Amino acid sequence: MHTLLDCLPCFLAQARMVAKTAGISSETEERMVRRTLSHLANADYRVPSPHIAERLYPLFYEELGDSDPYRLRKQQDNELACALAKTLEPKWKTSSQPLRALVNLALAANVIDYGVGNAFDLERTIDHVMSQQALVDHIDAFEARLADCRKILYLADNAGEIAFDRELIVHGLGARRVTLVVRGGPIINDVTRKDADQVGLSALVPVIDTGVAVPGVAWERSSREFRNAFEQADLIVSKGQGNFETLEHLHDPRIFFVFMIKCRAVSCLSGYPVHTGVAAFGDRFFLTPSHRS
Amino acid sequence: MHTLLDCLPCFLAQARMVAKTAGISSETEERMVRRTLSHLANADYRVPSPHIAERLYPLFYEELGDSDPYRLRKQQDNELACALAKTLEPKWKTSSQPLRALVNLALAANVIDYGVGNAFDLERTIDHVMSQQALVDHIDAFEARLADCRKILYLADNAGEIAFDRELIVHGLGARRVTLVVRGGPIINDVTRKDADQVGLSALVPVIDTGVAVPGVAWERSSREFRNAFEQADLIVSKGQGNFETLEHLHDPRIFFVFMIKCRAVSCLSGYPVHTGVAAFGDRFFLTPSHRS
Repeated sequence: MHTLLDCLPCFLAQARMVAKTAGISSETEERMVRRTLSHLANADYRVPSPHIAERLYPLFYEELGDSDPYRLRKQQDNELACALAKTLEPKWKTSSQPLRALVNLALAANVIDYGVGNAFDLERTIDHVMSQQALVDHIDAFEARLADCRKILYLADNAGEIAFDRELIVHGLGARRVTLVVRGGPIINDVTRKDADQVGLSALVPVIDTGVAVPGVAWERSSREFRNAFEQADLIVSKGQGNFETLEHLHDPRIFFVFMIKCRAVSCLSGYPVHTGVAAFGDRFFLTPSHRS
Repeated sequence: MHTLLDCLPCFLAQARMVAKTAGISSETEERMVRRTLSHLANADYRVPSPHIAERLYPLFYEELGDSDPYRLRKQQDNELACALAKTLEPKWKTSSQPLRALVNLALAANVIDYGVGNAFDLERTIDHVMSQQALVDHIDAFEARLADCRKILYLADNAGEIAFDRELIVHGLGARRVTLVVRGGPIINDVTRKDADQVGLSALVPVIDTGVAVPGVAWERSSREFRNAFEQADLIVSKGQGNFETLEHLHDPRIFFVFMIKCRAVSCLSGYPVHTGVAAFGDRFFLTPSHRS
């Protein structure tokens, strides 16, 4: 999907959130904001917003003198989420529909996102999502597809969240047929190989990266390894809004999107309100006319 | 007060609101937004935000080919507010404290503001404000000061609102000693001479303008007439947030500020939450340390 004018204030908020996380001076923060404004004034809005983020974050990192300001936060989120995932095991183990429970847990964990600039409360969101389940729910169809599926590509999204992806991969999908995809480099709190290592996924499944540090997919500039894996997959699990924003236009029936709608832009595109949980195939769930066909 | 980084998204929202009001194409809207971003990237944030608005709105008007896109809206607001003010006469006429009622009505009417980009409901706000009265209330002190006061300068703010200013001026202050100040030219929905004419104030009190189209006061660039009137006044009633933002630094004990706190920036400066009604002298009402001295 294109970047909307609605997305622009979010980038300003992101600049300020990075500045706050890095604890820098107000002078540096102002410089980051001015560079954001200047960049956005001339950016191409026909690309998905993660592609604009790809260009913006390096400007922030240059000002900070740090190419991974969320490093520590990501480590902590991974630790916390691993511990939390352990305590939540009974949720899916005792469920009459364990796969649905695992998908919903992984969906709830998608609330861990520093890109949208909002505070989040993982435990509360998990309680909330688990009680409501995904509001756009194709999980039965997903389960049916799993039966005769050999190669699953799992596009991970954020640190922390990945601990719940691990649960879904190991206990819901079957680790033997899964390849995990992480970002090509640090951007926001998105997962890299380091995070897959930290939550123990690297020991269980092959991990490849997209080759680019984009909080989503940039198909044309991706590594050959990722493109091959994508083409050969029977089923693709796409976690998070950034992956959705950069893949929805493909209308690829192999893609199962799992994410929380976090902003007005995606809400307008999909026709569902912000905070809707989505666990659904391709474009079959959109309410808006352009996608209903 | 300075322009804060918090103020920047508001300018983007204003560009889009002007575009929406003018009903222009999405291409022109995008161009307006890009020019806003570009202007803000290089603007001087040490000036109050109304001074930034002063530079921005002409860029919008240039794109629209219209130097007063709120013209019609202002006329309608004046008409509606005149009619509403008439029906609300019993509110202050039957009040045990008519001056307080008139100030509160004029304060409630300050909700009519297209600069902050929010929807408003004048009748509901009036009900609300009249029931609560100003939350920062120096109206007794104001009434005492009125007793021995010969020259009152009344800085008006927005169209529509000015119908309630008229009630306060005529029935609360005494029109004979009041001079009304309007903006030097159209900007947002701020009052110009045309609005003072429309609500019948020009026939009752002398009307002068600041000489500049700023949604507030730009002292250094103001007309000599305004500056003289300002210096000679015993009491200055300053309506609206824009006037507050551009005058608060004077710490002038003659200024009685009447406005609704409409944004986080002014909320942070004053220490009061957004939506607080203020009818108070100079800097005596601030909760924040820098202003408490």
